[in-house]
Amino acid sequence: MRSFGSDNHSGAHPLVIEAVAAANRDHEVAYGDDQYTTRVKDAMRAMFGPEADPYVVFSGTGANILAIRTLTRPYEAVVCPFSAHINENETGAPEALMGCKLFTTRTAEGKLTPAMVQEWLTYAKGNQHRNQPRVVSITQPTELGTLYTVEEIKALADFAHANDMYLHVDGARFGNAVVALGVTPREMITDTGVDVLCFGGTKNGLMAGEIVVFLDPELGRGAKFGRKQLSQLPSKMRFVSAQFEAYLKDNLWLEMAAHSNRMAAYFAEQLKTVKSLRIMQPVAANTIFAEMPRAAALRLRERHHFNINAADPCSARWICSFDTTREDIDAFIDDLRKILG
Amino acid sequence: MRSFGSDNHSGAHPLVIEAVAAANRDHEVAYGDDQYTTRVKDAMRAMFGPEADPYVVFSGTGANILAIRTLTRPYEAVVCPFSAHINENETGAPEALMGCKLFTTRTAEGKLTPAMVQEWLTYAKGNQHRNQPRVVSITQPTELGTLYTVEEIKALADFAHANDMYLHVDGARFGNAVVALGVTPREMITDTGVDVLCFGGTKNGLMAGEIVVFLDPELGRGAKFGRKQLSQLPSKMRFVSAQFEAYLKDNLWLEMAAHSNRMAAYFAEQLKTVKSLRIMQPVAANTIFAEMPRAAALRLRERHHFNINAADPCSARWICSFDTTREDIDAFIDDLRKILG
Amino acid sequence: MRSFGSDNHSGAHPLVIEAVAAANRDHEVAYGDDQYTTRVKDAMRAMFGPEADPYVVFSGTGANILAIRTLTRPYEAVVCPFSAHINENETGAPEALMGCKLFTTRTAEGKLTPAMVQEWLTYAKGNQHRNQPRVVSITQPTELGTLYTVEEIKALADFAHANDMYLHVDGARFGNAVVALGVTPREMITDTGVDVLCFGGTKNGLMAGEIVVFLDPELGRGAKFGRKQLSQLPSKMRFVSAQFEAYLKDNLWLEMAAHSNRMAAYFAEQLKTVKSLRIMQPVAANTIFAEMPRAAALRLRERHHFNINAADPCSARWICSFDTTREDIDAFIDDLRKILG
Amino acid sequence: MRSFGSDNHSGAHPLVIEAVAAANRDHEVAYGDDQYTTRVKDAMRAMFGPEADPYVVFSGTGANILAIRTLTRPYEAVVCPFSAHINENETGAPEALMGCKLFTTRTAEGKLTPAMVQEWLTYAKGNQHRNQPRVVSITQPTELGTLYTVEEIKALADFAHANDMYLHVDGARFGNAVVALGVTPREMITDTGVDVLCFGGTKNGLMAGEIVVFLDPELGRGAKFGRKQLSQLPSKMRFVSAQFEAYLKDNLWLEMAAHSNRMAAYFAEQLKTVKSLRIMQPVAANTIFAEMPRAAALRLRERHHFNINAADPCSARWICSFDTTREDIDAFIDDLRKILG
Repeated sequence: MRSFGSDNHSGAHPLVIEAVAAANRDHEVAYGDDQYTTRVKDAMRAMFGPEADPYVVFSGTGANILAIRTLTRPYEAVVCPFSAHINENETGAPEALMGCKLFTTRTAEGKLTPAMVQEWLTYAKGNQHRNQPRVVSITQPTELGTLYTVEEIKALADFAHANDMYLHVDGARFGNAVVALGVTPREMITDTGVDVLCFGGTKNGLMAGEIVVFLDPELGRGAKFGRKQLSQLPSKMRFVSAQFEAYLKDNLWLEMAAHSNRMAAYFAEQLKTVKSLRIMQPVAANTIFAEMPRAAALRLRERHHFNINAADPCSARWICSFDTTREDIDAFIDDLRKILG
Repeated sequence: MRSFGSDNHSGAHPLVIEAVAAANRDHEVAYGDDQYTTRVKDAMRAMFGPEADPYVVFSGTGANILAIRTLTRPYEAVVCPFSAHINENETGAPEALMGCKLFTTRTAEGKLTPAMVQEWLTYAKGNQHRNQPRVVSITQPTELGTLYTVEEIKALADFAHANDMYLHVDGARFGNAVVALGVTPREMITDTGVDVLCFGGTKNGLMAGEIVVFLDPELGRGAKFGRKQLSQLPSKMRFVSAQFEAYLKDNLWLEMAAHSNRMAAYFAEQLKTVKSLRIMQPVAANTIFAEMPRAAALRLRERHHFNINAADPCSARWICSFDTTREDIDAFIDDLRKILG
Repeated sequence: MRSFGSDNHSGAHPLVIEAVAAANRDHEVAYGDDQYTTRVKDAMRAMFGPEADPYVVFSGTGANILAIRTLTRPYEAVVCPFSAHINENETGAPEALMGCKLFTTRTAEGKLTPAMVQEWLTYAKGNQHRNQPRVVSITQPTELGTLYTVEEIKALADFAHANDMYLHVDGARFGNAVVALGVTPREMITDTGVDVLCFGGTKNGLMAGEIVVFLDPELGRGAKFGRKQLSQLPSKMRFVSAQFEAYLKDNLWLEMAAHSNRMAAYFAEQLKTVKSLRIMQPVAANTIFAEMPRAAALRLRERHHFNINAADPCSARWICSFDTTREDIDAFIDDLRKILG
Repeated sequence: MRSFGSDNHSGAHPLVIEAVAAANRDHEVAYGDDQYTTRVKDAMRAMFGPEADPYVVFSGTGANILAIRTLTRPYEAVVCPFSAHINENETGAPEALMGCKLFTTRTAEGKLTPAMVQEWLTYAKGNQHRNQPRVVSITQPTELGTLYTVEEIKALADFAHANDMYLHVDGARFGNAVVALGVTPREMITDTGVDVLCFGGTKNGLMAGEIVVFLDPELGRGAKFGRKQLSQLPSKMRFVSAQFEAYLKDNLWLEMAAHSNRMAAYFAEQLKTVKSLRIMQPVAANTIFAEMPRAAALRLRERHHFNINAADPCSARWICSFDTTREDIDAFIDDLRKILG
């Protein structure tokens, strides 16, 4: 099976599996005190600066909740786009596990601006009947496949800090953003003033693994205990960290991300030659959204894996993975042309 | 490094790693609709009966919380031994994520009896100022390395049901119990009336993976949504399920459990020849607790990995893994003898 | 001081205070087993039918949370208008105390329709990444001062039940709705199929007191324990129930509501004679919203108490109480005219 | 009816009702910005020092939860006696609403010592699998009717602060402690280093009302929002604050407490003349516990209101109120003598 349904549909890079197999020797201390995790934490500090405070976890939802919960009280609020993963795709984990309310803004490109955050501050700040905005949460690249520039991130961080708020970056596809912007992780995250990053792995060629990186150890206080309480502390952590070692080695992660970005660009280019279909957002990373007739989308789905929304108008989503091939895309476009003419 | 600190210190069985590598081909639907998970769920139904309703998750804490939270309301309570993993080793996840209170009883062998549950019912039932007991939670084998007999489990299940309660079994080391008792999983769980079992994998030779098995699909209603909300839904679930396929194939899991039990029995036998040391509970599975002079324990820990408690008197814990060898034990006992004479 | 800021700014009806003073004799059993509470519960059953299951509580927020939390699991969702009190004015209590997510729709008149609920069902139902809609929550009269007809409530109840959902009515100003519609409480609530009503008292002339009424005792199971856990169980409950006895006696509650409705009608009539001001929603109960120049609103607020919003355009809110007088209104309109011309 | 079942069975002092009636004039700003509340807050600062940061709430459970939740994170823990109200009588509100775990110690007199707290620190501190002790919670007087001396409170505060913890005092019967110890509130609370006090009213002659007093405004940060979220913000707060004004005026609260203490002392004295009955703890305030034959206790309860426990041995509890009379006690003792001989 080949799929554009999600980058979770692809497996892991062979080097990742190899690293896991190689880590399967001898006994190792559990719960994070193993040598693999030590090295991965060092690598995170090398990437983001000596102040970086990293926590290896199982899943993306777990990473987001741990990151934000560590920074908030239940009567506070997280400002995010409506399309945020924490709002649309985590079955209410933020509300249930942090207690916080999400203040969401519907945006065309999935991107938050300081003006949008200001609206929620105007709405709630100081009013005892409303949650107090404490965290600005953005996804980079966004769930709609668009990107914040480094300047936009810095503007949000500055705005957040000026208003006693923190900036959280959900980087489930962080590698795709790094290669798309052509900047270093440190330039995009540390230098802009981001407070906490979820450094994704699973969607970019790992089996399972994410790292929550607080950019200041003071912010990460208590995260050690929160991680365990949120059931996100892998006991045999070596098997998650070994994946990350392979991921980071020789920039494998950036190579995989560059590939999936290139495939999405190629995909988008091909789509432009197809009638009755409109690409909805700029394709900056590895995700494409397009509006198309629902009937055509449903016929295509008989042969191909991808997501469409339930409401009108019909929007289809295609995501490229580290192992997507031009042949995968060409075959899809062929079928698409047959249906849309 | 060799360790008796935890069965989380061992790695994974080579066949488990092989299965993971073999599953790393092609694309697969994410979030549980893959072929590996389908087969594992079938295997669970074959093991526990056609009514069994299984949910693959990442971690033991996650499994316990999902199991119990699905069956309780925040104003209810879980009755368990003080030594229960959910009470002593999950950083308050039950209270924080389910909202429930734990009613705990201190017991010499880590085993709950109907009489102990009755005490909490007497204490709280119908009193609007107290949480209402709803779940009896036992660990099999217990955290102290002891075992409930099949009859004892049945008595607890009967008692629970007679009092409008459910019986939850934390089976983080379930395989060790099955081989120790010499009964089938179905005899121990389904036939006794257990309501939900956490079928452990990680501590018995997997990298990471547990399965929550509701014995009646009606009880599991909503668990699908709760799993995601509790951040316990692996996106690339095939990599967890593939481990379980290897685990179950040709009874590898029972073989591994039998080995670690045998090693613990051998270990206990050797300990009996050592002075100034008292084995605290019957050694029925793969865990041994012994009282010994703290000074001696601390000296031993300079060369060996194992846990001791902080308070007096000093109790040491040794756990054998699927890959513990007689040589590991002999080397330890040698050093122990040198110190204790 | 006279105020249009809120019906919480008025005090209590003198007969209510009298009843409280009269209840201050002798000892009484605490926590709800007193004679006053017994009579109030009987009165609720007389009003809503023998199946009604009432719970006296302190506050409106507490009432809403108890009502909804009793009917939901944390992975479920409540569908409500964005303007709902539970969304805009309870500092995130629903999310923090129930765990649930709110699915909110922005509506011009603060009223939900089955079509709006259907949108959220389409969005989420069956999708394990999204909260499952379980409760439809409406306010009657709405926070915007509008009303659902009996037929509209019935349509929502039918729709909810057809979709395995419940209908909750926040009746903080329930009396105002009853007199405005000219129907009995039973016709509006019991006969339409409402599942739980928060029967308000505080805003209509009590010192403090609300009653959560489940229309089926099966739905209220556990509410007794949940009430205490949510810190909404008054210990000397007689003093809350005595207020309700006076409130219900000789239809005092309906008389007070009728008065505040009449005052609002009179207020609205006067407003129509003023330039540069637009009444935003039909004035059906005791609340009026009007759009007006912010500068004028700010000047008026130097002399009068009322709320305006923070964002543009400027909307002002005036609420009449059981003790609002024509003189209060005339004085206000005079000043308004001086400013707006 | 006359009752020794609880000081919640008595009504309110007539002066309290008078004050409530007097406050029922004119409109007042809601939610705490009224003149009555302003004066009560000033009175609290006069009593406890200019740094005191007071929050008026509805109920004792609400007060305790607000106090402790403001100071803790969900992965932390509260150390308290098993007999604490927060553990035994709040239906798990602390666990459900704060997320925290309670570390409880069973004590003969309901009093915690630094050594007991140290045991929990030894047990948990720094261990990522265990909640981190953050608050020491004591009740003064205790639920068992005993008292901490000023020196004992200071020792607990010092110990707490030396271990990065806070000291919370549940003062549901605070007045009884003040008169019993013969010290000022400031000496007992501010000067000893207590961090937050729940200043009780309901059990000592109010209808309903408690005040959470943080002794340092920095500690109370966020309490304003937390109070509303926990549904403990009275809208017409004047009616709670007016009660406290009467309560504090001319030391009415101390007079009432002194009376109930005196009655308990008289009660205890009479009990000593009765056979087959053993007073269990020193009677220092207004609560008496005694061991007696269950059959006798049950017969007495046919004619008198008081609590007995469910388990063996049978302990009875009698509580005196601000309006308990010698005649009440004499009548009870007469009947007791008839039964016990």
